[in-house]
Amino acid sequence: MQRWESVTIVGVGLIGASIGLALRERGLAEFVIGVGRRSSTLRKARQRGAVTSTTTDLSRGVRGSQLIVICTPVEEIAAFAVDAAVSCPSSAVITDVGSTKLEIVRVVDAALNRSSNEVAFVGSHPMAGSEKTGPAHAQADLFKGRVAVVTPSKLTNEAAARQVERFWKQLGSNVVRMSPKDHDRSVAAISHMPHLVASSLAAATPDAELQLASTGWLDTTRIASGDPELWRQILVENRAGVLKSLDKFEKVLASFRRALERDDQQKILQLLEAGKQSRDSLGN
Amino acid sequence: MQRWESVTIVGVGLIGASIGLALRERGLAEFVIGVGRRSSTLRKARQRGAVTSTTTDLSRGVRGSQLIVICTPVEEIAAFAVDAAVSCPSSAVITDVGSTKLEIVRVVDAALNRSSNEVAFVGSHPMAGSEKTGPAHAQADLFKGRVAVVTPSKLTNEAAARQVERFWKQLGSNVVRMSPKDHDRSVAAISHMPHLVASSLAAATPDAELQLASTGWLDTTRIASGDPELWRQILVENRAGVLKSLDKFEKVLASFRRALERDDQQKILQLLEAGKQSRDSLGN
Repeated sequence: MQRWESVTIVGVGLIGASIGLALRERGLAEFVIGVGRRSSTLRKARQRGAVTSTTTDLSRGVRGSQLIVICTPVEEIAAFAVDAAVSCPSSAVITDVGSTKLEIVRVVDAALNRSSNEVAFVGSHPMAGSEKTGPAHAQADLFKGRVAVVTPSKLTNEAAARQVERFWKQLGSNVVRMSPKDHDRSVAAISHMPHLVASSLAAATPDAELQLASTGWLDTTRIASGDPELWRQILVENRAGVLKSLDKFEKVLASFRRALERDDQQKILQLLEAGKQSRDSLGN
Repeated sequence: MQRWESVTIVGVGLIGASIGLALRERGLAEFVIGVGRRSSTLRKARQRGAVTSTTTDLSRGVRGSQLIVICTPVEEIAAFAVDAAVSCPSSAVITDVGSTKLEIVRVVDAALNRSSNEVAFVGSHPMAGSEKTGPAHAQADLFKGRVAVVTPSKLTNEAAARQVERFWKQLGSNVVRMSPKDHDRSVAAISHMPHLVASSLAAATPDAELQLASTGWLDTTRIASGDPELWRQILVENRAGVLKSLDKFEKVLASFRRALERDDQQKILQLLEAGKQSRDSLGN
């Protein structure tokens, strides 16, 4: 088992604070330093037991850490990673938890390469979360049994990639290694498109009809409750991937429309069977 | 409390058998007669305690009943209701549990009117169910706390409509009265469109990407697991309503596409906020 003397978590919201809690409950880190902008959030994270000390000063917060995990909204991840690399030990490894990878890895790789910084950056994405936000909802077992994708690029130090994979395994995750590009295409299909679809469905349902809404509508639109600002960032960062997934979805939807308009019952049945087959392949 | 000496349930699948169980557990009916095509299903319903006797002969099954509930797939409901009306007592009330109402009520009303039959038909739709099917999964409390829509038409006997409303209340449901047309428009928006969307999303997701699928994809596609043949019938019966809801959904989806293509971040945020607002208005 790998043990860290000091880990820094930048951004102590639900995910960051859950990492801190997991590190402490599993005895994986002696010190967990929480870095954030707001003292009130940092205080909550400390009260929750997710971090052992806090600071609003990034360079102070990363100075003595072997591992730095950036848990901010996706738009800010690359800048924080690059800033952290300036102040942390040159032997440190930096990773992140962003829902998109291609753009983040590209920007950080380029910046570290340009400055000949020896610090290693390895992108990752734990496929875990909640509609709830903030350190108060942190859970030590948030990552247990969930997939964590680790996305080394051609520039990534292999030892650092392995260290980040071990980190997620020690939090209980099942690690999957993918290229940043494959990751973004995949999450466009199974996360970003579902969000766009759930949000569109919720927005397209007239208020007056909601009286009858039952489990079907509630399940299908559940993720539309997610934070709009965070999701705007995700959809924008993965624009290309989302648009490609949208093409595929619109094709199936257009087939449904045509089949309904023509009363082509055989085709309607085929489409419903294709949907069921895909859904049933994953169980509940 | 109204009590029936004899109630007939035509079609003893999940819904029909759950009605039988609820009637018996709540002491609302002395005899519950199950009518079906397959002896094996009828036997299961009897073993489950959902019915007190069974027959494959509709006319025998309805001969002495005061209330007849048609629980077959939607395409067959109208024909069974009309056939039942020929053999049941003239004082009997017939209702159904179909997910669509306009077409069923129109056909049954016309047939009873033409034949000057005094039997009363009142359409209804309990908003309860499950992806599971068959009498083995029947639950006495399936309707408890759920909405049951009762859809009298201009031709419906008011006393019969009230009797059917009482029936659902006695099973624990919250009764909502609507015209068949309003019902179909409403369920198109909150049930049939979500099914079409969930099914399209599942079908459009490449198998290769499912490895990363998590709660978001699973929730959003859950209802795509429903029986394709039953859903084909529902979508076809409510074609007009579904196509109108599809128009609305496609408009929102097209706005999302345009906003992504133009990188119009303000518009993306607005759309996500509209989806969240609609979803949050209903809680979990």
